Amino acid sequence: MNLRLAKRTQEITPFYVMALLRRAKQLEAQGKDVIHMEIGEPDFATPQAIVEAGVRQLKTGEVKYTPAAGLSELREKIAEFYRQRYSAAVDKERIFVTPGASGAFLLALGTSLNPAEELLMADPCYPCNSNFIKLFGGQAKTIPVDAASRYQLTAAQIKQHWTKATKGALIASPSNPTGTLIAPDQLKQAVHTVNELGGCFYSDEIYHGLVYDENASSALEFSDNVFVINSFSKYFGMTGWRVGWLIVPEEFACATEKLAQNIFIATATHSQYAALAAFDKHTQAELEHRRAEFEMRRDFLYDALLRLGFEIPIKPDGAFYIYANCAKFTDDSYQFALDLLEAEGVAVTPGKDFGLNEANHHIRFAYTTSIDRMSVAMQRLEKFINKG
Amino acid sequence: MNLRLAKRTQEITPFYVMALLRRAKQLEAQGKDVIHMEIGEPDFATPQAIVEAGVRQLKTGEVKYTPAAGLSELREKIAEFYRQRYSAAVDKERIFVTPGASGAFLLALGTSLNPAEELLMADPCYPCNSNFIKLFGGQAKTIPVDAASRYQLTAAQIKQHWTKATKGALIASPSNPTGTLIAPDQLKQAVHTVNELGGCFYSDEIYHGLVYDENASSALEFSDNVFVINSFSKYFGMTGWRVGWLIVPEEFACATEKLAQNIFIATATHSQYAALAAFDKHTQAELEHRRAEFEMRRDFLYDALLRLGFEIPIKPDGAFYIYANCAKFTDDSYQFALDLLEAEGVAVTPGKDFGLNEANHHIRFAYTTSIDRMSVAMQRLEKFINKG
Ligand SMILES: Cc1ncc(COP(=O)(O)O)c(C=O)c1O
Ligand SMILES: Cc1ncc(COP(=O)(O)O)c(C=O)c1O
Repeated sequence: MNLRLAKRTQEITPFYVMALLRRAKQLEAQGKDVIHMEIGEPDFATPQAIVEAGVRQLKTGEVKYTPAAGLSELREKIAEFYRQRYSAAVDKERIFVTPGASGAFLLALGTSLNPAEELLMADPCYPCNSNFIKLFGGQAKTIPVDAASRYQLTAAQIKQHWTKATKGALIASPSNPTGTLIAPDQLKQAVHTVNELGGCFYSDEIYHGLVYDENASSALEFSDNVFVINSFSKYFGMTGWRVGWLIVPEEFACATEKLAQNIFIATATHSQYAALAAFDKHTQAELEHRRAEFEMRRDFLYDALLRLGFEIPIKPDGAFYIYANCAKFTDDSYQFALDLLEAEGVAVTPGKDFGLNEANHHIRFAYTTSIDRMSVAMQRLEKFINKG
Repeated sequence: MNLRLAKRTQEITPFYVMALLRRAKQLEAQGKDVIHMEIGEPDFATPQAIVEAGVRQLKTGEVKYTPAAGLSELREKIAEFYRQRYSAAVDKERIFVTPGASGAFLLALGTSLNPAEELLMADPCYPCNSNFIKLFGGQAKTIPVDAASRYQLTAAQIKQHWTKATKGALIASPSNPTGTLIAPDQLKQAVHTVNELGGCFYSDEIYHGLVYDENASSALEFSDNVFVINSFSKYFGMTGWRVGWLIVPEEFACATEKLAQNIFIATATHSQYAALAAFDKHTQAELEHRRAEFEMRRDFLYDALLRLGFEIPIKPDGAFYIYANCAKFTDDSYQFALDLLEAEGVAVTPGKDFGLNEANHHIRFAYTTSIDRMSVAMQRLEKFINKG
């Protein structure tokens, strides 16, 4: 063991999918065709108006540090977005522009989580969550969830697992990897339960906008006393720009600003100017068009996977993922993913990247590629299964 | 006291200069002219070739996540930069592209510093250093430095202050706020001393390039067993782009990649593509031109401040700061700065933003504005002093 490495580095888990990605690259270098269904980012380019706003800013050459909390105009636009989309009034002073939802997590947990404190969250969930917690010496207490609660934490579970060490609860809706939404009244109950327990409620709303049936509710509709994590990465198609935002309870605003000054200085300037165009009518129309395309892909992939014998107890409501049960084919979904890549050139993400709960029986399929490509992937998958 | 705020938020200090900045904005809104000598970023625009490279990338629209460690081409260019400028061979696998030197600090300390471990550093120094350390539960052990060591930590001081709790030592050269360089043999001794003690050596080289007499040495010239923190912000004129880099000892490469994946996902894509142009011959010529301009400003400001009666025991070698002793005029440099702003519209940074060591007797002047503006500032300063 290396005595110089910080202990937390042993606790922070790498992504298993990285091994698959490396192998996929090798195969592609050998001329093999790989269909990528493991990738957690939209395949669409950034909308033109956003790109243009970024280019305009760059061309001034004046790409200087912005205030740590972000451009004032962008914070106002985000406040306006909450008024319009969620009928929620959010004071601009509670809004912080961050380097992606990732930066939002750093600030939210950095200002709230003490070492040894626990956070409740669903298993399966986004793998970085527990690593952010470990960064600050905290503990992720993951609670197995299933179709009964749409793979979301319930208020009852929060109450049941709450101890003196618990700092709060984290909910992501739509969820990565399951794509499922929490029902508005369930979210409300969860928020109120955490508020009553005196803890912190963190709502990861990064996949809002990418929902195909009902609209997603924001935790801000039910309380001001919440952390909301969001981003321009997914719905707005801006992954590589690294810009997102965080909304904090009022009492956290000063500490959040101080921390942002120190650890980021600021979010990339031109990315912030570009994001100003994200709420334009024209951009919104384009994004809605893409949403419709994602919805068709979801329907296609959902039907295809069911037909092949995967189990998907709930049709996912949003994001661009289907978390399919592959128990019929394997008890080792990681090996299944490796073999599928090797034999047929289809890359998917193994369940164990998302937790321990039945992880060996799950595969995450991302529909971040065209229906044409997915059709080929499904043929290959069928061939693979029939051979197996 | 608020029980929900993490304890570390109480320990993390805000910048005192922020109060001055707010007041400066108010004065400017009232139509008063303020000369900004508090600002830690170049007043020059980003060089044209860098902007164009960024614009070219944006226009493709394909602004996707890059690998967590950064674009392979950029890591290669950085390796090449060390070969050419410092005759140091650095394996590409040890180079990580980060969101500024700030991101580099997060990774370097996140992978190495355990709670309760101490880091030795000079007082005065860059204020964020100790806040990064507190973020991870560590302790900054600041050591008062003075002109005798060019305001740099010495190997003897490192030995003297080293205890069982010490994890390592941090040196920044040229220093912010003093602008002074550590001599090559002093740096070598410091690196070797820390290596012998089995600790981690962190070298903040963000102001390299902005040196006006001798060249700065990199810690990498003396050992591979060091963390080097650098950035495109200052010399390369890219503050708002948020792109820098970190070089780690080989044994830290895996942990660094894992941490970067989790807490950043990646650095902004177009900023990385833009940075590819930073090492071009043409850009380098432009940057050298700016360096010459900074040198003239340094000479101007140094002479002017001495003439007014400030003490500057060592002529600064680099960065764009002069840390002047104002004991002749005040025992409260913060109040002096507030009064100077109020009476004459000149903004400077009070010593207490950089530590405790004679902070009340120091002011940091940044020459990030033209000689013309600085001339006016010096007239105003003279008037202020004579009234006082
Ligand atoms: C659930 C969830 N939260 C947060 C993030 C972080 O995204 P970003 O930092 O690009 O905004 C991701 C990215 O995949 C995610 O899936
Ligand atoms: C000494 C020093 N280190 C690091 C930084 C961080 O700069 P950036 O994150 O823009 O690279 C600064 C910025 O002022 C600095 O002065």
